[in-house]
Amino acid sequence: MKRETQDKKYRYEEVQHRMMRMVARAVYRPGERVPSIRELSRSMGVSLNTVKQAYLLLEDQRIIESRPQSGYYVRPRGFDLPRQPAFSGSELSPALVPSARICSQILSHAGDPGMVPFGAAIPAEECIPSAKLSAIMSGQCRRLLHESTAYAMPPGHARLRVQIARRLTLAGCDMDPDEILITSGACEAVFLALRILCRPGDTLAIGSPVYFNFLDMFRELSLKILEIPSSPETGICLDTLEKTLVSQKPSACLVISNFNNPLGVSLSDEKKEKMVRILARHGVPLVEDDINGDLSFSNVRPSVARAWDKKGEVLLCGSFSKTLAPGYRVGWLAAGRFREQAFRLKMMVSLASASPTQLAVAEFLHSGGYEHHLRHIRRIYAKKTAAMADAIHRHFPAETRITKPEGGFTLWVEMPESLDSILLYEKAMAEGISIAPGFLFSTTPHFRHYVRLNAAAWSDRNAWAVETLGKMARTLMDSS
Amino acid sequence: MKRETQDKKYRYEEVQHRMMRMVARAVYRPGERVPSIRELSRSMGVSLNTVKQAYLLLEDQRIIESRPQSGYYVRPRGFDLPRQPAFSGSELSPALVPSARICSQILSHAGDPGMVPFGAAIPAEECIPSAKLSAIMSGQCRRLLHESTAYAMPPGHARLRVQIARRLTLAGCDMDPDEILITSGACEAVFLALRILCRPGDTLAIGSPVYFNFLDMFRELSLKILEIPSSPETGICLDTLEKTLVSQKPSACLVISNFNNPLGVSLSDEKKEKMVRILARHGVPLVEDDINGDLSFSNVRPSVARAWDKKGEVLLCGSFSKTLAPGYRVGWLAAGRFREQAFRLKMMVSLASASPTQLAVAEFLHSGGYEHHLRHIRRIYAKKTAAMADAIHRHFPAETRITKPEGGFTLWVEMPESLDSILLYEKAMAEGISIAPGFLFSTTPHFRHYVRLNAAAWSDRNAWAVETLGKMARTLMDSS
Repeated sequence: MKRETQDKKYRYEEVQHRMMRMVARAVYRPGERVPSIRELSRSMGVSLNTVKQAYLLLEDQRIIESRPQSGYYVRPRGFDLPRQPAFSGSELSPALVPSARICSQILSHAGDPGMVPFGAAIPAEECIPSAKLSAIMSGQCRRLLHESTAYAMPPGHARLRVQIARRLTLAGCDMDPDEILITSGACEAVFLALRILCRPGDTLAIGSPVYFNFLDMFRELSLKILEIPSSPETGICLDTLEKTLVSQKPSACLVISNFNNPLGVSLSDEKKEKMVRILARHGVPLVEDDINGDLSFSNVRPSVARAWDKKGEVLLCGSFSKTLAPGYRVGWLAAGRFREQAFRLKMMVSLASASPTQLAVAEFLHSGGYEHHLRHIRRIYAKKTAAMADAIHRHFPAETRITKPEGGFTLWVEMPESLDSILLYEKAMAEGISIAPGFLFSTTPHFRHYVRLNAAAWSDRNAWAVETLGKMARTLMDSS
Repeated sequence: MKRETQDKKYRYEEVQHRMMRMVARAVYRPGERVPSIRELSRSMGVSLNTVKQAYLLLEDQRIIESRPQSGYYVRPRGFDLPRQPAFSGSELSPALVPSARICSQILSHAGDPGMVPFGAAIPAEECIPSAKLSAIMSGQCRRLLHESTAYAMPPGHARLRVQIARRLTLAGCDMDPDEILITSGACEAVFLALRILCRPGDTLAIGSPVYFNFLDMFRELSLKILEIPSSPETGICLDTLEKTLVSQKPSACLVISNFNNPLGVSLSDEKKEKMVRILARHGVPLVEDDINGDLSFSNVRPSVARAWDKKGEVLLCGSFSKTLAPGYRVGWLAAGRFREQAFRLKMMVSLASASPTQLAVAEFLHSGGYEHHLRHIRRIYAKKTAAMADAIHRHFPAETRITKPEGGFTLWVEMPESLDSILLYEKAMAEGISIAPGFLFSTTPHFRHYVRLNAAAWSDRNAWAVETLGKMARTLMDSS
């Protein structure tokens, strides 16, 4: 009995990955039949249940689909990835970020029970282990009365830093816990990293489209930004990046390397290594935001670019805001050779991060429940993302293209070019639906007809909202 | 029975204040006998116990002292207040803040069990209601599972903001809870306020000496500072302030208006009003740091300058770090007409503050235990401050002068001029004693022979450390 459980736990992933590889290598093409459960069970020497489990996951990932009385088939794509706008490297010039009051509006909608929260990238309520976290925090605060109320001065609670360092081995990093600085979420981590690396007026290279709150932050820091085109299939264009390193001499580069927000794409290991090499050659430090790294749909924790850093010039930012509790504000910054500066800057900016939530997260990681929790929520987000993409496909105008994220929970949706997403935003808001219009994600006009949707907020109860958005989009097209 | 408790609760303060006024007006002079408990009980028509209670408080405050078999006497001063260095208004010019690595060292000592923490201004462990706070936080998180883990987006938890607004009525403010932004301590509040009001290279007027972490912050913000001389008796010199407003045109002014760190002095109501009027006349906004406002030894909550602000140009910063729990990181900023900017900036810098600690502080304030707690810790701090000043007086070189704070828990100590406090700092650190040397509190050389000591860390167990410091100071004098 015990053995079968073990078998289930480990082997279904092997089956899953084997099928994913074969589909990726076009051994089986879209629309073709894949081996039946019985066939694969026999050929791989695993139980029927294990194959069933793997096929369920592959269905969740929209890689295969079952057809009644016929078997399993590689799923036709049905819709394409968004096109990569044509803005080439030679034309790029640094731009100041204009003010956009709308960002804070969208972030505020997240806590408004009257709004369908498709706008901000906030985790699903059912994916937050609130009861367990609260119980753990209570226990920790009772046990560590003084520590729970005293300052956890930078670099922060030691036990938490050790746990984070341990987890980073999964991402290919051999990290000294004493390099890790606890911050108030990844947001503060990125803010501190940029304040260390850039002075007002400096230029920052960044993958485009860009998470909108970052754009607000860049403006606040008086940075000019260089938007390097990023593809939904392969991520940031390294050729363009290298050209601009030469011509524009940015002070730093900021990249969301895994399950990019909004694109959902991760850089391959090869690309991460190459990016680090290129940046090192030009002496440009990298701020790597890995906020979604734990949210891989395939259950494989991707690497971080930092794993290839030999000079301490990759400043790695992470957080538990997407996986455990956004309201705990527990993030971290591993600032490499800028570590001391980071500690001091944190003291000047907010002195320390809250102690009780640091204690709670440390104990959650320590007690071993985190990995189990991740497996649980990754499946939920894979399902939600697929289901929402399906609904968008059904209800939005015909030419709509949607990303197929490999992790995280945002969908980046390209609508027909005539559609202005600001108008859609305004109409949607009037109906109690919050969305993030594409223009917010760039200083260029390339994404005006795009929209980012938070698939974490997908549920049968909210399905009407996608239908309504689709109708609004069609109406706007007709009237344009 | 009930009535007598009531009598005790309210009337002993009246007795206390009446005596304080009479001493202040020199109705009774230092060394003179004050009425006996019996006499005063009769003349004021209150119980003996009430007078006893009042006299105990007056003893704590070192205003009177009992002499065996003789009665109560107005306490001779015994030592003088530090002298106000002679740096006059016409000489003042804005200065850049040099780097001082020592600040973060001192702040780190606070959590080091191997150090006597006289350096950082950290509350006493016995004054932190850790058990009660933990219990309240547990209860709140259990009851409000979702809210405790979700973002409390700016301006922050509504119930907490209402409680803060209510308390501000005690300080003479009629505050709209929707103006209050919850921050990660007063530190982040001041940081946000300065980022709103000042650009890099701007000039900031500030009372001198200056809390050293602020100096670090000013350097980080690339501000030039104008140090306005402040007296330990009356606070910032308004004449000099007004002159520099004309000649130097600073972008803002920052003042710790109550129980100033390090001076311990509060501005009188008249002075607060005048300061607000002068600044308004010159269109210079005020950042008012009221972090110690709740810690009055006389149990009377002083006003804030904000109470006289008619233009929304006083940005009031507060915190529960000194009174409840430094590690909870619950502070706030009421940014007046800059409120919207403050909310957005907070989002860019750290998105939100931790939710569980906001819930805990809100409930602590709501359940009514806060005022009782304050009465308790004010007495403790009054005692500690007096006892530590006494010990300094006994052990330090003869010409040493010490402030006589009216609240808070820092002592500002002027040693003989030949003494270099950096040398004292280094010798003390080697013996496991952390102190804050005076040079950290200014860009001028006026305070090199000063030291700030954290009286909250005073205890019989730590008494040896003051004696050791005194010996070190004498040795340094002899060798200089």
